Amino acid sequence: MAHEQHQELIQALHDCAAECNHCFDACLQEDNVKMLADCIRLDRECADICAFLEHAITRNSPFVAELAAVCAKICEACGNECDKHADMHEHCKRCAEACHRCAEACRNIA
Amino acid sequence: MAHEQHQELIQALHDCAAECNHCFDACLQEDNVKMLADCIRLDRECADICAFLEHAITRNSPFVAELAAVCAKICEACGNECDKHADMHEHCKRCAEACHRCAEACRNIA
Amino acid sequence: MAHEQHQELIQALHDCAAECNHCFDACLQEDNVKMLADCIRLDRECADICAFLEHAITRNSPFVAELAAVCAKICEACGNECDKHADMHEHCKRCAEACHRCAEACRNIA
Amino acid sequence: MAHEQHQELIQALHDCAAECNHCFDACLQEDNVKMLADCIRLDRECADICAFLEHAITRNSPFVAELAAVCAKICEACGNECDKHADMHEHCKRCAEACHRCAEACRNIA
Repeated sequence: MAHEQHQELIQALHDCAAECNHCFDACLQEDNVKMLADCIRLDRECADICAFLEHAITRNSPFVAELAAVCAKICEACGNECDKHADMHEHCKRCAEACHRCAEACRNIA
Repeated sequence: MAHEQHQELIQALHDCAAECNHCFDACLQEDNVKMLADCIRLDRECADICAFLEHAITRNSPFVAELAAVCAKICEACGNECDKHADMHEHCKRCAEACHRCAEACRNIA
Repeated sequence: MAHEQHQELIQALHDCAAECNHCFDACLQEDNVKMLADCIRLDRECADICAFLEHAITRNSPFVAELAAVCAKICEACGNECDKHADMHEHCKRCAEACHRCAEACRNIA
Repeated sequence: MAHEQHQELIQALHDCAAECNHCFDACLQEDNVKMLADCIRLDRECADICAFLEHAITRNSPFVAELAAVCAKICEACGNECDKHADMHEHCKRCAEACHRCAEACRNIA
C-alpha cells in the first residue's frame, strides 16, 4: 500500500508539521515577535500543507506526487526563513532542520 | 439535504473563516504585532474550525451539532479577543462581528 | 488584498468543494455504489484540496499559484470521473460542472 | 509544552487517522462496498477530526479538551461501525481497535 512505500516521507511530514506548529506557538510568545512575523506566517503554511499531504498519503490519494512537489517548495521557504533566526531561537533551528529534511523527502517522491 | 437546512450557518462560517484569515494576515503586518499575539493565535484557531465545520456540513456529517457546539466556543473566544483591538484596527472590528454572528449561528444548531 | 483579487476563484472553489461533498454523500446512498467507488474517492480528494486552497487564499498565502496548479489537476480528474455518471445521477452532473469551472478558474491563477 | 504532555494522545490520534484512511481506501476496493457505505463515511469523519485534533495539540491550541470530547464521540461511532465488519475485513478490525484506543485517549483529556 502507498502508505507503506511512503513511510519515510510520512515520518518527515509528521515531524515537520509538529516542529512548524511548535515554532508558530513559540514565536508568538517571543518578545521580538515583530521580527518573526514571516516565520509565524510560513510556519502555518508549512504545518498545514505537511498535515494535508500526510493525510493524503494514508488515504492512498492518486495525487501524492503533485502535492509533494508543492510541499517541497513550501518546506524550503519555511526552512530558509527559520534559518535566519536559528542563532537566536532554538525552536527556529529545530524547525529549519525539520523543514529541510522534509523538503528533501518530498522531492524524492515528486 | 443537510446543507440546504444549514444555509445560514454555512454563510456565517464562510464569512467568519474569511474574516479570521484576513485578520491573521493583517495583524502580522501591524507594528504592534506583540500586542496582537493572542489575536493571531485565535484567528488561526477560529478560521480552522469554521472551515472544518463548513466542510463537515456539506458532506452531511452526522456530527454537525457536536462540532457546532465547540465552534461556538472558539468563535466566542476569538470575537472577545478581537473586541479588545476593534478601536485600533478595522480588521479586528470586522472579525469580531463575524465571530459573534457565527457563534450565534452555531449555538442555534448545537 | 489577495482575497479581493481572487473573488471569482474563491467562489468557484467554494461551489466545487460543496458539490463534491454533496456528490460524495449522495454516491454513498446509491444502490450502484460499487460503480461509483472512484467517484467517491475523487470527490473527497477534490473537496479537500478546494477547501484547502480557498482557506489559503483568504489568509494571503504566498503559495496560491502553486496550489492552484495542483488543484486544477485534481478538479479535472474529478470532473472527468463525474462525467461518466452524469447521465445517471444528477449529483454527478452538477459536480462535474462545478469541477470543470473550478479547474478553469485555477488554471487562470496558476 | 502541550505537545509533550499529550504524547500518548498524539500517537493514538496519528494511528487512528492512518487506520481510518487505510480502511476508507480498502473499503472502496471491496466487492461489498454497498454494505460498507457507513464505514466509508465514518472513516472519513474520524480520520479528519483526528488529524485536526493532532494538529491543534501541536500548535498548543487552547481548545484541546473541547475538541477531544467531540473526537471521542466520533472515534466511538467509527469504531462501533467497523466492529460490524471486523470478522470479514482485517482493515475494519484494525481500524476498530485504533478507534476504540483513540476514543479512550481522548476521554482522558476531555
